[in-house]
Amino acid sequence: MAKQKLKIVTIGGGSSYTPELIEGYINRKDELPIEEIVLVDIEAGKEKLDIVGEMAKRMVKAAGLDWKVTLTLNRKEALKGADFVTTQFRVGLLDARVKDERIPLSHGVLGQETNGAGGIFKAFRTIPVILDIIADMRVQCPDAWLINFTNPAGMVTEAAIKYGGWEKTLGLCNVPIGHCSSAADKLDIPEKDLFFKFAGINHFHWHRVWDKSGKERTSELIDILYGPTQNEDDNHLKNIHSAEFHYEQIQHLNMLPCGYHRYYYIEDEMLNHSIEEFKKGETRAQVVKETEKRLFELYKDPALDYKPEELSQRGGTHYSDAACEIIASIQNDKRTEMVVSTINNGTIIDLPYDSAVEVSGVVTGHGFEPYNWGAFENAGARGDLQSMKGMEETVIEAAISGDYGAALQAFTVNPLIPGGTIAKRLLDEMLYAHKDYLPQFASKIKEIEEN
Amino acid sequence: MAKQKLKIVTIGGGSSYTPELIEGYINRKDELPIEEIVLVDIEAGKEKLDIVGEMAKRMVKAAGLDWKVTLTLNRKEALKGADFVTTQFRVGLLDARVKDERIPLSHGVLGQETNGAGGIFKAFRTIPVILDIIADMRVQCPDAWLINFTNPAGMVTEAAIKYGGWEKTLGLCNVPIGHCSSAADKLDIPEKDLFFKFAGINHFHWHRVWDKSGKERTSELIDILYGPTQNEDDNHLKNIHSAEFHYEQIQHLNMLPCGYHRYYYIEDEMLNHSIEEFKKGETRAQVVKETEKRLFELYKDPALDYKPEELSQRGGTHYSDAACEIIASIQNDKRTEMVVSTINNGTIIDLPYDSAVEVSGVVTGHGFEPYNWGAFENAGARGDLQSMKGMEETVIEAAISGDYGAALQAFTVNPLIPGGTIAKRLLDEMLYAHKDYLPQFASKIKEIEEN
Amino acid sequence: MAKQKLKIVTIGGGSSYTPELIEGYINRKDELPIEEIVLVDIEAGKEKLDIVGEMAKRMVKAAGLDWKVTLTLNRKEALKGADFVTTQFRVGLLDARVKDERIPLSHGVLGQETNGAGGIFKAFRTIPVILDIIADMRVQCPDAWLINFTNPAGMVTEAAIKYGGWEKTLGLCNVPIGHCSSAADKLDIPEKDLFFKFAGINHFHWHRVWDKSGKERTSELIDILYGPTQNEDDNHLKNIHSAEFHYEQIQHLNMLPCGYHRYYYIEDEMLNHSIEEFKKGETRAQVVKETEKRLFELYKDPALDYKPEELSQRGGTHYSDAACEIIASIQNDKRTEMVVSTINNGTIIDLPYDSAVEVSGVVTGHGFEPYNWGAFENAGARGDLQSMKGMEETVIEAAISGDYGAALQAFTVNPLIPGGTIAKRLLDEMLYAHKDYLPQFASKIKEIEEN
Amino acid sequence: MAKQKLKIVTIGGGSSYTPELIEGYINRKDELPIEEIVLVDIEAGKEKLDIVGEMAKRMVKAAGLDWKVTLTLNRKEALKGADFVTTQFRVGLLDARVKDERIPLSHGVLGQETNGAGGIFKAFRTIPVILDIIADMRVQCPDAWLINFTNPAGMVTEAAIKYGGWEKTLGLCNVPIGHCSSAADKLDIPEKDLFFKFAGINHFHWHRVWDKSGKERTSELIDILYGPTQNEDDNHLKNIHSAEFHYEQIQHLNMLPCGYHRYYYIEDEMLNHSIEEFKKGETRAQVVKETEKRLFELYKDPALDYKPEELSQRGGTHYSDAACEIIASIQNDKRTEMVVSTINNGTIIDLPYDSAVEVSGVVTGHGFEPYNWGAFENAGARGDLQSMKGMEETVIEAAISGDYGAALQAFTVNPLIPGGTIAKRLLDEMLYAHKDYLPQFASKIKEIEEN
Ligand SMILES: [Mn+2]
Ligand SMILES: [Mn+2]
Ligand SMILES: [Mn+2]
Ligand SMILES: [Mn+2]
Repeated sequence: MAKQKLKIVTIGGGSSYTPELIEGYINRKDELPIEEIVLVDIEAGKEKLDIVGEMAKRMVKAAGLDWKVTLTLNRKEALKGADFVTTQFRVGLLDARVKDERIPLSHGVLGQETNGAGGIFKAFRTIPVILDIIADMRVQCPDAWLINFTNPAGMVTEAAIKYGGWEKTLGLCNVPIGHCSSAADKLDIPEKDLFFKFAGINHFHWHRVWDKSGKERTSELIDILYGPTQNEDDNHLKNIHSAEFHYEQIQHLNMLPCGYHRYYYIEDEMLNHSIEEFKKGETRAQVVKETEKRLFELYKDPALDYKPEELSQRGGTHYSDAACEIIASIQNDKRTEMVVSTINNGTIIDLPYDSAVEVSGVVTGHGFEPYNWGAFENAGARGDLQSMKGMEETVIEAAISGDYGAALQAFTVNPLIPGGTIAKRLLDEMLYAHKDYLPQFASKIKEIEEN
Repeated sequence: MAKQKLKIVTIGGGSSYTPELIEGYINRKDELPIEEIVLVDIEAGKEKLDIVGEMAKRMVKAAGLDWKVTLTLNRKEALKGADFVTTQFRVGLLDARVKDERIPLSHGVLGQETNGAGGIFKAFRTIPVILDIIADMRVQCPDAWLINFTNPAGMVTEAAIKYGGWEKTLGLCNVPIGHCSSAADKLDIPEKDLFFKFAGINHFHWHRVWDKSGKERTSELIDILYGPTQNEDDNHLKNIHSAEFHYEQIQHLNMLPCGYHRYYYIEDEMLNHSIEEFKKGETRAQVVKETEKRLFELYKDPALDYKPEELSQRGGTHYSDAACEIIASIQNDKRTEMVVSTINNGTIIDLPYDSAVEVSGVVTGHGFEPYNWGAFENAGARGDLQSMKGMEETVIEAAISGDYGAALQAFTVNPLIPGGTIAKRLLDEMLYAHKDYLPQFASKIKEIEEN
Repeated sequence: MAKQKLKIVTIGGGSSYTPELIEGYINRKDELPIEEIVLVDIEAGKEKLDIVGEMAKRMVKAAGLDWKVTLTLNRKEALKGADFVTTQFRVGLLDARVKDERIPLSHGVLGQETNGAGGIFKAFRTIPVILDIIADMRVQCPDAWLINFTNPAGMVTEAAIKYGGWEKTLGLCNVPIGHCSSAADKLDIPEKDLFFKFAGINHFHWHRVWDKSGKERTSELIDILYGPTQNEDDNHLKNIHSAEFHYEQIQHLNMLPCGYHRYYYIEDEMLNHSIEEFKKGETRAQVVKETEKRLFELYKDPALDYKPEELSQRGGTHYSDAACEIIASIQNDKRTEMVVSTINNGTIIDLPYDSAVEVSGVVTGHGFEPYNWGAFENAGARGDLQSMKGMEETVIEAAISGDYGAALQAFTVNPLIPGGTIAKRLLDEMLYAHKDYLPQFASKIKEIEEN
Repeated sequence: MAKQKLKIVTIGGGSSYTPELIEGYINRKDELPIEEIVLVDIEAGKEKLDIVGEMAKRMVKAAGLDWKVTLTLNRKEALKGADFVTTQFRVGLLDARVKDERIPLSHGVLGQETNGAGGIFKAFRTIPVILDIIADMRVQCPDAWLINFTNPAGMVTEAAIKYGGWEKTLGLCNVPIGHCSSAADKLDIPEKDLFFKFAGINHFHWHRVWDKSGKERTSELIDILYGPTQNEDDNHLKNIHSAEFHYEQIQHLNMLPCGYHRYYYIEDEMLNHSIEEFKKGETRAQVVKETEKRLFELYKDPALDYKPEELSQRGGTHYSDAACEIIASIQNDKRTEMVVSTINNGTIIDLPYDSAVEVSGVVTGHGFEPYNWGAFENAGARGDLQSMKGMEETVIEAAISGDYGAALQAFTVNPLIPGGTIAKRLLDEMLYAHKDYLPQFASKIKEIEEN
């Protein structure tokens, strides 16, 4: 009954993460009757695509599988008849991320490449492209699932569903995965024996934890992780500085924050740390650029036919593995419990019905079934979340319309960007800096250039 | 970590269903570390309690188990230290149900002992008792789970949670179970390979069905079950007359109705049929009384140490099995997919946040986690459901306050009772007939008596 | 600043109500700088249009006004440049209403020409026409206000706004007007010294009343109007039988019902009365037909140049006066307090945001500003209202799509129509009887005819 | 019917605003049948009470009125039999406000004495007192109206209604008044010929404007006030620095912001300006202290029997006049259109049902009837507002419970306070500084002191 010959297409196939994805498929070879894996990239990514694509072929071969691995720059062709499309592209490559992070910091403002000024610009560059991809999918593979792990994953997912009309879109992130394994470690209980319930939006969610006996362990975890013995090693997100949360505030929340909440809850520490990195030329994007360079050197080795250990240190690890699991769970109606960016439909009643949320649920053959969350009890958390959602909606609107007022609104309401003169100056500077990837803002950018 | 020595208490333990419950525990002996089963009943039910209680003991013994089986009329004592309390009592016994059904029919009105005039009076009699039980539980077993399968299960569950404040209440019904097995039969697909999503309230819910490949099979089932070849044998509810649904209306719903929808969707046929039964002295309660008499004769046989086949024909079968499964799933955090009456909390956004709904979800160690449903797409179904919920809330209010205006309101808005003179006359007659079990309405009943 | 030369167009200008409308304009001649009044009708109404149109001219002349009064069958032409368009047409004329009322009664079912089976068919006939009118308005008078008093006014208003996209639509009814003057009479307080707050939908609303001192007088009015001394003369709706409400139920509501609630709250009395009328050939439509005949005889009198007393007994009186007041209030930003059918936008949070509600508010130069209502406190009233709204939405859907399943759904969920065999039989018979005015159902009607 | 002999009590009667209040009553002497005005203050305010109280007596006498003017420190006695209670007290007097503003600025953080860190502490000090006043009112004057103009007016109103249970509470602010007269000026249209619709919360609301012809003038006003010719003189709020809004952002809003939005939309400019004032020792509180000193010198003059011109420059002008108008409108059911802080009840569906909102409506004999607002169309504005409300709810919770985690949460989620180390340090310093007025936080303050 389930599909017998799968075609899986990865947009942004030249990514350094691809080996993890391939490894994930190989690990699930009994669940995934793959016929063809297509790695798609753009001209500018051709070299990387060739390197990592050849390695992907070696990995498949080493696993003794007859899967066809295709490398191509022709997206339309690639999508034809696809069953699953995964997206992991980065418009403007890492150089754009460098700008996303460094330009704000040059003004003393957090860049934060997913929810801050950097994330807003990543959304501006990415959303028009995801809508283009969907336009192609509508023709080439109208029944395919779109598994997005391009950041900002929440906004991209919302745009794909609400504006692209692609209901079969699921957004993925590795952050919840890390929180689950960390909780299991700290409680010394196997992860499968804990029940996790996450709610919020991408990179801005909270969670609660119960054990098999039905006992809620959330406050115990708050004590362990954020109490007086708080330890920076407990931050499993390698890409986020381990500033310490304020214990009493987290106790009042009575939910576990996600790593990205550091940017909101202890903004000053994070800003100071980021400015230090900025001064040393060690912002995250710059570090990642070096890592990637090293990884691609490794990938060139024709003897390497397995995922190298170094990739695990890259930061976004588990992303690709989660993507493989979601595909396997859809394919086999496995009902795996996962945390996914999906359409709200009232799961969190504090947020608009048609917006994207990131919540716990099970992955079935017909898609994601979220557990109901209801209303947030903590008014402060609720308000913060609603504010972030309003910001996201405004970003998506601006990304599509190219309306400068909307973009300025998004900057104004984003809690990581101080309102006022600086917000406008930063916006203008970033519009100019990213002009090659922002056709929707062309006329405004021209006006900026002329001044 | 999970509890090691379980005490399970059944209020209404003298019920003819008890052997099914015992069988259910025996079948799950590896999952349920039972130490004691307590069967509680009231003075009027002592004889039945003794008969069925002795049989329960024989069943446990025959299974080679050392579980203690206790029979008692002392509810407070029974509840002490309980882990699970199940409720299956009937205030006023079957004679009250006979009145619930026959008095309305004597006026040409459907009684419907769960949602109609009969159900309203069952709620009036039952809700004060469930609140009493909870008052006892608060003292005797503050951590126990309350598994209710006393009808009207939705209203009783809502009263227990909203007015009794007992959050650890779950309501059970066998109707969804029958719909699941019937769908599996019709599609010739194992039940576990189908995904069912139910939403609504007790005895007034709809469902959708998907297969493993992700294909929705709802409309196909509508065709099979309610299309031109509609067959009365496909009605798995033995206690509901198999009048035929209108195919086009069900197609427009685009959801599968539950058996009880017959009372609303094809009201005239059901009324005509009920009136025939009434004339023949064969209303459901009367039939059940006979069945029960036969069952208790069987139970008296000291050689009988297993659930007799005849019980399966009693109508409410699967109820007790479902109760055992819910207990096992809580005890072992099994995350079994079930359909349960639970607090809404926004699962169905068309209904009040704090009301009871009957929806699909998983049973965990900390309770029931419903899948989000969101809004009903069909405006007619949505309005019907909202109307029934308003009626239920009014019934619960009247059951607690004893306010005659509230009772008359409930009768007026109930869709199975025609508004007007007849509603009031019927209400008064039923208040009088059930006066022994309605202390909250005592002053109004006295006034009725005097007229 | 306000418009200086008004063109007011009345669709269905041949109505017997037109003199009241003209009188209303004349009474407000200082507020309404009218240049032209256009009375539009269809070929079948030409004779009546001529009669009443000539009388309108005489009335205007007698008032010493230079307003142009135009009679025409050319709707498109008529609409050109209109400032206000009022609608009071009846598709199929009174003969259709006779069928709406008599066919259901022939099956022992209430027809109720606004919310019952009759009202559903009136909606089926009317909604496509109102959407046509709006299509013309979009071209001919894109800034005009549409003041609808064609029944079922709530559904027509909802269709105009939600499906026609004509936001400048207001729906009018005379029922609230009667309740206000009746309350003032009973309390012996000038109407302007009372504050009325209505909420619900057309012909299904409740209200509360306060006096100048801030004291709520609702329960006092309930006592006077529906208490032990209830008097049938207190029913100000000439077209609704004065069956008595049940005092205790209304007390529990703690709001004043509208006259039409008799059909729901004391359904059996109303049905019995209607069946008697039916047997005597005196259903409302039949009575109105006679009244209309007499009125048109009067109108023919070339000496008659004022609204005759007989019109006041027609039943719908005050309708036209309300329409004139709403026009005057928009024109002059008078902020008159009125009760209007308008888009909900959260005024009643129990109903969909985009549906029509009938509520109190003020009429301003930019339209209607409703007072916030919030949630209904009485769960029974809330559920009833939600059920009626779901029914209305289903009717509108069916009226536009011509989907038979939707029509059957509407019949099934309508509380005045018993579900089942009778609902379907009645639907089919009415579809056939009205076939000339139901092009959207043509194929289904053909199928019915063939059987 | 309306009350014939009014007793009006003013808590904080020793305020420098009192003469405006008295003038307002005198101006409405035909509408207000006052018997007694009671000015209440605390021991620390006795001197000011005597000065301004004597002046009040002179004003009343000069107006030829026989109203009794009573000065007292006995609040309980004063409240006995009151019809209206107005509150304009300041716990800790202006010295506390100096701290509210200067301590944050000493850390480079905006104090903002209504919504920022200063406002949070004003709420901490004020809310327990308003709940005490209500406790007295419950005994002394159970039917009185509470007209609050103590800041933060929104939070105080919400606490009074939600926690104090005093439904007859209305909160007042002069900010909307200024916006209305400014719009009238700019459009050169009499204010009464414009329709204003405000929505939001105290000091965080937006508005739209229409003229009599029904034309919306909002965007025209945006152009005039915030377009290229933006002029700092157009800021009618004397107490808020006239930094310029960003035109494009306001255009995108498509609503007119309130003056306090400068703190959020152009935060950096406001902060820079405040720091300059701080350095010069000219924060608002310090300026006001000087003004007050001068005013009381004037008030001492036994010849002064009218409101001196200097009071108008005090900043909060119009407040008291609005309070008199609201009293007159309640007393006479005038239905004056005003902007009031009131319970939401779904007026703004984006905010909790039971929270306080500041919206347009009419003041009737039974209280405030808000015009429905519905949902905000601008997602950025919606999110910002929801975030502020979540902050307010957290502040109120902390003010009542004295929970330090809640206080830290409030500081963390307040958009004017950067999260992190600074938030906590500031909170601790302010708790310590205000310790005399924060009994609820006593144990935490002791802990801080010990460190
Ligand atoms: Mn992520
Ligand atoms: Mn059941
Ligand atoms: Mn009407
Ligand atoms: Mn203010």
